[in-house]
Amino acid sequence: MIDSMVAKHAAWPKKDDIIFALAAKAQSATKEYGTDKVIDSTLGALMNDNGDLVCLETVYNELKTLPNTAIASYAMVAGQPDFLEAIIKNCFKDYKPNGYIKAVATPGGSGSVRHTIYNYTNLGDSVLVSDWYWKPYATIAEEYGRKVENFELLNDKNEFNVKSFENNFERLLNKQKRIVTIINSPAHNPTGYSLNDDEWIEVLNVMKKNAENKENRITLLVDTAYIAYAGKGDERRKFFKLFSDLPSNILVVIAHSLSKSHTMYGMRIGAAICISSNKEIADEFYYSCSHSSRANWSNCNRGAMEVLTKIENDETKLKAYEAELHKYKNMLQDRADAFVKASEEIGLKILPYRDGFFISIPCKNAKAISDEMIKENLFLIPLEMGLRFAVCAVSKEKCKKAPALIKKAMDNII
Amino acid sequence: MIDSMVAKHAAWPKKDDIIFALAAKAQSATKEYGTDKVIDSTLGALMNDNGDLVCLETVYNELKTLPNTAIASYAMVAGQPDFLEAIIKNCFKDYKPNGYIKAVATPGGSGSVRHTIYNYTNLGDSVLVSDWYWKPYATIAEEYGRKVENFELLNDKNEFNVKSFENNFERLLNKQKRIVTIINSPAHNPTGYSLNDDEWIEVLNVMKKNAENKENRITLLVDTAYIAYAGKGDERRKFFKLFSDLPSNILVVIAHSLSKSHTMYGMRIGAAICISSNKEIADEFYYSCSHSSRANWSNCNRGAMEVLTKIENDETKLKAYEAELHKYKNMLQDRADAFVKASEEIGLKILPYRDGFFISIPCKNAKAISDEMIKENLFLIPLEMGLRFAVCAVSKEKCKKAPALIKKAMDNII
Repeated sequence: MIDSMVAKHAAWPKKDDIIFALAAKAQSATKEYGTDKVIDSTLGALMNDNGDLVCLETVYNELKTLPNTAIASYAMVAGQPDFLEAIIKNCFKDYKPNGYIKAVATPGGSGSVRHTIYNYTNLGDSVLVSDWYWKPYATIAEEYGRKVENFELLNDKNEFNVKSFENNFERLLNKQKRIVTIINSPAHNPTGYSLNDDEWIEVLNVMKKNAENKENRITLLVDTAYIAYAGKGDERRKFFKLFSDLPSNILVVIAHSLSKSHTMYGMRIGAAICISSNKEIADEFYYSCSHSSRANWSNCNRGAMEVLTKIENDETKLKAYEAELHKYKNMLQDRADAFVKASEEIGLKILPYRDGFFISIPCKNAKAISDEMIKENLFLIPLEMGLRFAVCAVSKEKCKKAPALIKKAMDNII
Repeated sequence: MIDSMVAKHAAWPKKDDIIFALAAKAQSATKEYGTDKVIDSTLGALMNDNGDLVCLETVYNELKTLPNTAIASYAMVAGQPDFLEAIIKNCFKDYKPNGYIKAVATPGGSGSVRHTIYNYTNLGDSVLVSDWYWKPYATIAEEYGRKVENFELLNDKNEFNVKSFENNFERLLNKQKRIVTIINSPAHNPTGYSLNDDEWIEVLNVMKKNAENKENRITLLVDTAYIAYAGKGDERRKFFKLFSDLPSNILVVIAHSLSKSHTMYGMRIGAAICISSNKEIADEFYYSCSHSSRANWSNCNRGAMEVLTKIENDETKLKAYEAELHKYKNMLQDRADAFVKASEEIGLKILPYRDGFFISIPCKNAKAISDEMIKENLFLIPLEMGLRFAVCAVSKEKCKKAPALIKKAMDNII
């Protein structure tokens, strides 16, 4: 009797996702002890203070008043043309870079990461990501026989570590002659770090220097999953302008997701948006990604496209949406401020938080500390290099309390 | 200046989909001349007699009354457990085979085809499909450095060509030691052919004979995209029972889509459902496909899952849904009957139609004939081996008229 059928490259450990398992534990604790007794910071989705998912009214009112045909119809493989215009507008706002810009619809940001990694690297290549990173980058890479290698996100001053980026970037590029590097900013998952504009300029200088050799192929993938919650106004979009008029062997791809910005996590919509100084290269991106879409999910959620298009193309609706989003952005920033302040007061060392859904606490033994915290009914996610606390999911009151609980558990374990 | 950035395997011709281009032409002709003057049989979606997309009320009423959180939340990577139960029930109805059955949610049937091809073949392998086939099988294969090779769908008696299947199956299996073969039945796209149960038994006998060599790895992918419109009652599901208790080196995967059955084309939901006599192999399938899902689209449309689950788990809702579907199934079968009868009367040779959205007319010069027909305001899709007429999109009256128009154009061209 045989007990394996898959090809070698497709055999993976038979294990379930750790985040979902912890979230399930947290939910059953909440049921048993009540919301006020449990701090559930497991899931990366915005919750109100009662722990219920925030669903923007301005988004779901649009969805539910769409004609059925606008939901039922197939979308075009690359996405509806008016949607692609709308999502480019939604992404860049007033900071659209100069260049040829082409977009292809994808299921959330994940699909954009998939397309960029698969289409712009070769089998056996390594993708460069920071040492604190969203694990599915590695899942996508390994699915296709690629690997991830790391640079250090932060230097000893807790700033973006350009030196480590440069060393690893050049090491891989010299070996592979082509490179895909992912920068998840603003509002990095899991740390909440955002590169400032000077740091972006330094990153691009490294790339431009290496682009002088025209044999090199450099692809910068910018994951903007959490951008809607970054900064006070739109200042966290200014860096997009830096992608203007780059050498033609630097391709920039934005993995732009509407999951968080429109609370459409479950609807699976986003886009891969490229910027190139060369029309041929932008077109090549469009057809390469369209082929990949056809060969994976065929086409994306039509109703979700219609919702964005309707909101972006109607000034009144757009204002209402932005006002609703802004309310929750403030709520999130208040929570994060409370967590950061309480951490300072209690002496809990956290990574430099700027924006977004998560704050990270660097430590060894993250798994042991997370297990210890479960006894206190505080649920957070253990990572290789520390703990991830989802401020998006926890009320301000609890964000004030959590650092002391975490500090205590860490002191007990170490 | 460089003008290409993608890796070699990801460079594809810069051309757009021919079906969408023709559909756009048909729609502009309809605008110019009126619905009654144009026969638009381009798109594979069910239309009413006015050419408007059918959207089942019993489906969209469910969607639009879901709580927002049931749409907004992330689904689990493999799909919600209650959805997976519901879609297995929806697929097999009273004909669930014996064996270990595991399902993973996918965006329509396309995602299931992708998972099965990528995970169960090696780079360079060929996937076996019939000579009349849905072109995206080839798109999926070539995306991943695989090819398709063909057997002849029909013998000279217009029955399933088991001999051609057997020869090509054994030829590829001997070379590759593993094979994925796709059978799109019932209601084959583009011919409308359905294997009868005796033909299925013959197909399985070929596989069982070759499964005696335990080194061989045989994966049968059954594409049931159009099953909801096949047969009068559920008799076109009986063949599922034949997948009971097969040797463990034969894995059956059903690419089961809700696009057509629930008129949820644009919502992108379906599942890859495997049947194996070995629990390890079914589990392996589940984890391999879950890894692939995470690495491509992350998770599928949550609201679409909820809709199916609600309908399948409520006897009253299920009956109402089935009654509504049945009405349109009858409409479709009436149209197809009219087309087949008119073809016989006029002497237009068509392929043996049994079920489904399409009828095919074998011919050379399909492109020239299609171009000729455009002048008559009849729009159909030219394929390599003939013409595809979408009865799903055309009223019964027009289905009666079309064969004479097609015959005339063919006579003019040949």
